This record gives sequence, structure tokens and C-alpha cells, in this order.
Amino acid sequence: MRVAVMTAPGEVRVEDRPPPVIVEPTDAVVRLAATCVCGSDLWPYRGIEPLDGPRPMGHEYAGVVEEVGSAVTGIKPGQFVVGSFFASDNTCEICRSGYHSHCVHRESAAPGGAQAERMRVPLADGTLVATPDIPTDDLVPSLLAASDVLGTGWFAAVAAEAGPGKTVAVVGDGAVGLLGVLAASQLGTERIVAFSRHGSRQKLALDFGATDIVTERGDDGVARIKELTGGLGAHSVIEAVGTQESMMQAIHSTRAGGHVGFVGVTHEVALPGMELFFSHVHLHGGPAPVRRFLPELIDLIVSRQIDPGKVFDLTLPLDQAAEGYRAMDERRAIKTLLQP
Amino acid sequence: MRVAVMTAPGEVRVEDRPPPVIVEPTDAVVRLAATCVCGSDLWPYRGIEPLDGPRPMGHEYAGVVEEVGSAVTGIKPGQFVVGSFFASDNTCEICRSGYHSHCVHRESAAPGGAQAERMRVPLADGTLVATPDIPTDDLVPSLLAASDVLGTGWFAAVAAEAGPGKTVAVVGDGAVGLLGVLAASQLGTERIVAFSRHGSRQKLALDFGATDIVTERGDDGVARIKELTGGLGAHSVIEAVGTQESMMQAIHSTRAGGHVGFVGVTHEVALPGMELFFSHVHLHGGPAPVRRFLPELIDLIVSRQIDPGKVFDLTLPLDQAAEGYRAMDERRAIKTLLQP
Repeated sequence: MRVAVMTAPGEVRVEDRPPPVIVEPTDAVVRLAATCVCGSDLWPYRGIEPLDGPRPMGHEYAGVVEEVGSAVTGIKPGQFVVGSFFASDNTCEICRSGYHSHCVHRESAAPGGAQAERMRVPLADGTLVATPDIPTDDLVPSLLAASDVLGTGWFAAVAAEAGPGKTVAVVGDGAVGLLGVLAASQLGTERIVAFSRHGSRQKLALDFGATDIVTERGDDGVARIKELTGGLGAHSVIEAVGTQESMMQAIHSTRAGGHVGFVGVTHEVALPGMELFFSHVHLHGGPAPVRRFLPELIDLIVSRQIDPGKVFDLTLPLDQAAEGYRAMDERRAIKTLLQP
Repeated sequence: MRVAVMTAPGEVRVEDRPPPVIVEPTDAVVRLAATCVCGSDLWPYRGIEPLDGPRPMGHEYAGVVEEVGSAVTGIKPGQFVVGSFFASDNTCEICRSGYHSHCVHRESAAPGGAQAERMRVPLADGTLVATPDIPTDDLVPSLLAASDVLGTGWFAAVAAEAGPGKTVAVVGDGAVGLLGVLAASQLGTERIVAFSRHGSRQKLALDFGATDIVTERGDDGVARIKELTGGLGAHSVIEAVGTQESMMQAIHSTRAGGHVGFVGVTHEVALPGMELFFSHVHLHGGPAPVRRFLPELIDLIVSRQIDPGKVFDLTLPLDQAAEGYRAMDERRAIKTLLQP
């Protein structure tokens, strides 16, 4: 079967590999309806995260179960499923507290890659959530988005305590930030300020529920947020980039007692203790426990209350994965959907 | 009048200075019943925080109002009052949200020092809370403790979301950490683990409600907390030191989804982004909004439900302030009460 493999920074090629098989009795094999390229895939692509040998890529997936292991009881062949990038048992104390991405049995949900025709998913009962029916094709992009980018934006909005009566600011106009806007809106936030200087992304932010666009960044962006909030800062800030500048922009944009939800992977970030101390913000984030939100997100999608699939502004056949990476790296595309 | 002045690192002397007068119509002048030395006073004493000229010291106070400015309506001469180290208006949007120590009009509550016979307190109506009656002498140390060290420990416990069903760990066996134990216990926490290797502090921790003592620190301390919590870590951790080691010990001792409440002043601390990201903890702290808690704390003290004044294990006349600092610096005393 075909799978996208990163062989070196900037180098992605689609190779033939043996199709996945059931290894553990708790596994499932899923035939992908769609997959995609993640912003975090760009870290090794750009050489910021080391790559130790060729790596089968991808961790976002939606598709039809082909086979399950002997211990799988809740998921059946023929079901359409969505899962998160971390496999989780959904039963341990940490899962029960909502932190599935820190499950005591967590492991990669896509050990052989998900930018592929088929994939093996461990801990299938805990990891996968089936849709009520086989979805029509037009719902597939949104269901795929739920697998990571929507679930991550949603977690950021929850971590930032977005909701009624709040002003939410969103740092980062990538797919996660844009879906953070959508999540904040769904959570009942009246005022949502998106930081963006790109026309197409601004448009999507407004479409997802943003009420204000700020084009400044860094200290100027912070000053603009303060202006918009009576000098106090936003109640809630979503951080969806992961650089030192974006983290400090998020912290400084938040009022005392407010909440920063950070989901950008914080490579090369060091938070100065005194600034954090005197900021009086709440800080929470990390790899999103997407599994916590999947039943609710699937429901919102299949009932057509939300359309997160709009973040895919480039659709390519899996064989053209390399071009999908290039387009995202060069910010020509917000997010690339790959059709196996 | 007599006031303790720090003239250089390690140098504290008690000088005669003119008594304070009403400067702003919102001021009050308070005659101190008792004052004390704060752990944070040791930062400049140890040369870690710069000192730009002689500094009148102290910011913890309880005493009788002698005079109020013409705009003060809620506080009257003759009342016994307690206030926080930050003056706050108690009416702005930030105060109303509970973050008085970030009041839009905040300023030092003790501009002329509080290790003194008398002090000027700005924004008296917002800052000071009167006790129901003039307290008996034996209640004065506990009321003084409410001014900072109890209020700070209480905020740390609230920030760490201590409460029923939780295991709370406390990093730091100074007066703030010990009163964090008391706060966690009052908030209904069943299991409270205090990190301490000093006999007298361990005893006080147990007295305030600790159920377990851990003598290891750093990575060994983290391993011990994990052992005590089924490998997961504590739900809530109070950080009351402010060093790199203690902050990382607190973060690593907390389970995924748990809460760190940090109140140690984080000098020379830089939190590594990736560790924070993958820890999945909630982080919140800063200068405690003591004013938020004062009415409740005063009530608990005058009704003799709590006795936080036990943290004062050394009582000296104000004129011996220098010895009070030395004893705390050398960890011979947990906290020094000074009698003006």
C-alpha cells in the first residue's frame, strides 16, 4: 500500500509498504477515507525537530474499520471511525479525568503513519469513536478535522476558558488557531479577536465567528488587544503557534486572572519566571486530549452545526503528498487534505 | 518613630523617622499592633534582589486606625484592621474578579514600611478590613499572619485547586508553605503531603493538617510523590519557594490535568516550554490577592477555627529587627514577629 515517508528535512515521498496487520488483540485496521498534513509535521520538515531515519508520516485519520483484534468489543468492521493521534484506553484514572493524551497506556495512534491507504490503530476500543452512520462524502473533511486540528483548537478554547461574557484572543492563524475561533464561538463567546495578517485566513476566522481582526503582532499586537479591552487584556487567549514570541504575546495579551490555553508545540521556548509570576494568568495546555471531545464534535459535524472541514483549502491525491507539504510550508495552503 | 531600614544586603537597622501623615484623602494611618519579617524580605537581604538606597522594610501589618483621610468612609479611627501588601480599590473590574493584587490602582500598601510603629496605608477603604471587635492579644499574631503569609498560602491552595478528593503536595516548608498546608486542610483536602526535612517544620505541618512528610527533594522527591499516588502524581501542588529546582519539582510532582499553585517569587526561573507542554499541568500563581480572602480568614481566626499565628516561632521587640532577619536567614526561625 502507499504511505508518505519523510526521508530528510524537506523530503517527503510516497512509498509502497506492506499493508498493516493486527499485531495486538486490541488493534484495529482502518482503511482511510481521508488524511492530512499537520502543522506539527512541518517541525521535522523544517529541520527543527530531529528525524532519526525515514519516518512514515501522519497522525490524523477518519475511515472505515476493516479488521479488529480478538479483544476489541466496541468497534466493528464496517464502522466509520475517527480517533485521536494518541491511542488511549479510555478507562484509566487519567482518561477518566479527561486527559486521554496522557493515558497511562498511551502510545502513538498511527505507529505506521496515517498518510497512507490503511493504518493500524492500537487500543481500538478506547481510541476510536464511530459515527452514527456511514457519513456522506461531504462530511469526511470535517470528520477528519475532528481527529486533531478541531479537537486541538477545541481543547485550547476550553483550556482558555472561553465562554459567555468573555473576550477571547487567538494567537496563530493556522488551522488550529482558526478552529480555536470556531470552538470559542461554539462555547458561547461573544467577542473573538483573531490575530492575522493574511486575507484568506482573516476571512475564514470571520466565517468561524471572529468579531475582530488584529494585524499587529508582538508588543504592538498586545497593545491593540489592550486598547480593545479597556486596558485590561483579553479574559482568554488561545496560543496556537508555539514560539517564544507567540507565547509571550499570548501571556501579555491576557488580563490578570485570565486564562491562556496553549497548544502550539513549544519548541525552544523558555518562560521567564518573573513575567509569568507578575502576569497573574492561568496557563494550561499541551497535546490536546482530543478523545475527550470526539463524541461531541462528531455530533456537531454530522448534524451540520459546524463545518471545520473548511480549513482544508488544498486537496491532493496521497501520491502528491510532497506538494501538500510544500504548500503548507510556504503558507500557500492553510491545511492539505490527502486522498488515499 | 522607629522603623526598620535595610541599608545594604545583610544590614538592617532600626532608625528614627518622622511619623507618617495623611497624604492623600484616601489614606489611613495605622498604629501597628504587630509586624513581621517576610521570606521575600530575604531576597534583598541576601543580595539577590537589588537595593537602590536605604529601604524602609515590611509590608505585613495589623493594628489600630489612628487617622483617616477626608475621602475615607468605610474605615474609622479606633478600628482594628488587617490589610494586604498591595493597596487596592476593591471596586475595579480586576478587583471584582478577585485579583486585588493586580488592581488597576494598585500601589504598595506600606510605602513607608510596615516594620515600624505606625504606617500610612493608601486606598484605605479598599485595602483595609476591620475585625468585628478589638481582638484580644493572643489573636494578634494570627491576624498579622492573614496580612500576607496566610493569605498567600491560601491563594496557593486555591490556585492549586486543593479540596475534597484531592492529594495535595506542598513544596517549601517556610511559613507560606506551612500555611498552604493549613489552607489545603481547611479547603477539605484529605491527603496533604509536605516536603520537609526540618523537625520543627515537619511538626508544624502535621499540626496544620499534613498527613504525610517527604524528606526527599528534586527528582527523588518527585519519585516519592509518584510512589504515594499510584504513579500518577498529586492532583494539586503548592509551590512556595520560587527557585528553578522547586518549580520543576512542583510541575513534575503534579499529575496530567492537575494544578500547580505557585507563590514563591520566581527569581531566576525559566520554565522549559516542552516540559511544561508535555506535563499537562495547570499553572497559576503570582502575588496573592490576599484582600479577596481577608473577610473569610479574619472570621476563621476570630472564631478560633484556625491558628496560623503558630508560624511565628520567634518574637522580638522591633528594635531587634536585625536579629529577626538573621534568624530567618539562617533558618533558625520560621518567621519572626516584631513588637513595635
